[in-house]
Amino acid sequence: MKGQLFNRRRFIADGSKAVAGITLLSSLTNNTWAYTRKPPRIRFSVISINHPHIYGMIESVIKGGGELVSVYAKEPELVVAFSKKYPQAKPARTYKEILEDHSIQLVLSSGIPADRAPLGIEVMQHGKDFLVDKPGITTLEQLAEVRRVQKETRRSYTIFIERLESSTIPKAGALIKAGAIGKVIQTIGLGPHRINPQSRPAWFFDKKYFGGVITDLASHQFDQFIYFTGSTEVEIIAAQVGNLNHPQYPAFEDFGDVMLKGDKGTGYIRVDWFSPDGLKSFGDGRQTILGTEGYIELRKTVDLSGRQGGDHLFLVNQKENLYIDCSKEPLLFSERFVNDILNRTETAIKQEEVFLAAELGLKAQAKATELKLKG
Amino acid sequence: MKGQLFNRRRFIADGSKAVAGITLLSSLTNNTWAYTRKPPRIRFSVISINHPHIYGMIESVIKGGGELVSVYAKEPELVVAFSKKYPQAKPARTYKEILEDHSIQLVLSSGIPADRAPLGIEVMQHGKDFLVDKPGITTLEQLAEVRRVQKETRRSYTIFIERLESSTIPKAGALIKAGAIGKVIQTIGLGPHRINPQSRPAWFFDKKYFGGVITDLASHQFDQFIYFTGSTEVEIIAAQVGNLNHPQYPAFEDFGDVMLKGDKGTGYIRVDWFSPDGLKSFGDGRQTILGTEGYIELRKTVDLSGRQGGDHLFLVNQKENLYIDCSKEPLLFSERFVNDILNRTETAIKQEEVFLAAELGLKAQAKATELKLKG
Repeated sequence: MKGQLFNRRRFIADGSKAVAGITLLSSLTNNTWAYTRKPPRIRFSVISINHPHIYGMIESVIKGGGELVSVYAKEPELVVAFSKKYPQAKPARTYKEILEDHSIQLVLSSGIPADRAPLGIEVMQHGKDFLVDKPGITTLEQLAEVRRVQKETRRSYTIFIERLESSTIPKAGALIKAGAIGKVIQTIGLGPHRINPQSRPAWFFDKKYFGGVITDLASHQFDQFIYFTGSTEVEIIAAQVGNLNHPQYPAFEDFGDVMLKGDKGTGYIRVDWFSPDGLKSFGDGRQTILGTEGYIELRKTVDLSGRQGGDHLFLVNQKENLYIDCSKEPLLFSERFVNDILNRTETAIKQEEVFLAAELGLKAQAKATELKLKG
Repeated sequence: MKGQLFNRRRFIADGSKAVAGITLLSSLTNNTWAYTRKPPRIRFSVISINHPHIYGMIESVIKGGGELVSVYAKEPELVVAFSKKYPQAKPARTYKEILEDHSIQLVLSSGIPADRAPLGIEVMQHGKDFLVDKPGITTLEQLAEVRRVQKETRRSYTIFIERLESSTIPKAGALIKAGAIGKVIQTIGLGPHRINPQSRPAWFFDKKYFGGVITDLASHQFDQFIYFTGSTEVEIIAAQVGNLNHPQYPAFEDFGDVMLKGDKGTGYIRVDWFSPDGLKSFGDGRQTILGTEGYIELRKTVDLSGRQGGDHLFLVNQKENLYIDCSKEPLLFSERFVNDILNRTETAIKQEEVFLAAELGLKAQAKATELKLKG
């Protein structure tokens, strides 16, 4: 195993044209995921690749010790692009071919959102775990069926939400657990996104396919609400959705917000497709966590005050006002997730947390009134 | 008039021990309110001084051209402290003495909140204008009566909310009016405050006197919602209040939040008494204004781990990402307010805006459910 790891490292270093020892080392440390990549411990495949999020998901699983074996997509042009990036992935003729390959332990998917849960159900029924792009479930009926099959098969159904890719959110969680801001009272999660309409396929603009703006974009914020407050019983107090500025796409929603109350904290969530082009990231995502003895603000992708990059954490409590650059914190998901597949544990994320976050999004979407404003 | 202005300047400069010309000049430019102070144009008095906000209100009116004539308060110790700061204000024996002084055009008050509207009604009935600390009205019944008497007497009833003291809020308003972020869709207003319990009188902890946390603290955020969205018809979608961490004060509320919808924008407001001691200001007040073509964030009193002082404006739109230091922008209220008293105009703030902001706070407070969290 160790030999394999070193071979992989050398391969990457060679590819980056490094020759002398010192250059080799620095090229490795600049390439964190390659440097910390685990040797293959599980075999996985990909079915449906309609959103480029799939690439981040694959990198994460490879880093944790996954070996990418095969790929299937209905769209040949997407398979061609995929194969350029991952020549090791064998294109399958049907998705059933992957489901019936007993050597495959895990399937990843970024299919059209409405198709994800039906696929995941089949994946679990074939004895495999499932890692899916958000939104991982687009209706309450799908959720009920996913829950039923997950319970029956004991396979895992994981939605790849922001917390799993983030060093900042777990850092805030650890600070809170250590008592840095007292008891958490409330969270505010803002998830603006840039729309880039020219880059989007037709399904992107029809909520029948993506499940509505709250179901889709607020997946992350519902998860973080549960994670930071520790709530297990949660009520949607009010929700709104609207298409406020995209009349050319009548089945689209560009704005949504939610007020919610858990047994251990209350919260507000806003998501939208209004990130302007002058912003240095796809969206100025914020998470504020208010406690009885302080608060934390996460600026996840950009700091308007001027710091470079993302992963900014600001903490103010009774004693101090701190800034923590979380881009230096470790990313824990990949290794834990592959461990969980091997050990049948829930160290990366609990199955019930995945389902509760999805459920809250679906309930808020279902409860949402339509927002209309005067011109 | 010009002579009076120069005399006042010289008096202040003398008081600050400046002797040589150059020192005199620099002491004046460092003292903005003294430097720009207008000569007296109206005579005003003060009735009830239970909150130190009165001092900022007085400075503002003097700056605009007001002459402080007399003061009345039930509490002799408050009058003593007041008289040290304003020896020119003659202590009155009763508040009626001030009401019946025909030379007084304006009365200021920071009495116990529940007593403010009854006083303001009498003030207007005596032909004088009224400028009152927030919350200026603590029940919907008081509001109805204030509206009725204001209409009858044509005197003004102005609540001294944040926008009037701010250079940042009008700057954001001007940018929005110039089209910097397109059409406003939504606002988020956060108003955390430090509680300093040892400095507070008993009435501070009993909502019967202050009207509840939304009525009190969210006065500013309701006003800014109206100001930035331009809404005139507004519905409270949901509201919550709670006493989450102050069981020793059972009639207190330390948290409140509101989701609201206007004809021209939607909004969320959160207020609380949880500012921690590590913060450099009384509260990290934020206002975010989302438009179809960009957004503005105001950091009103502090920029976490960043720039000094308050009045920070961040603008991101399709073209750029700008920072504007609004502490250099002019403060317009004082002069406009005194002009309005002389000219019977509404250039500082419209009477209907004052009433609508108060009404929304009172309605949200009345509609609020009680928030309780598990320990």
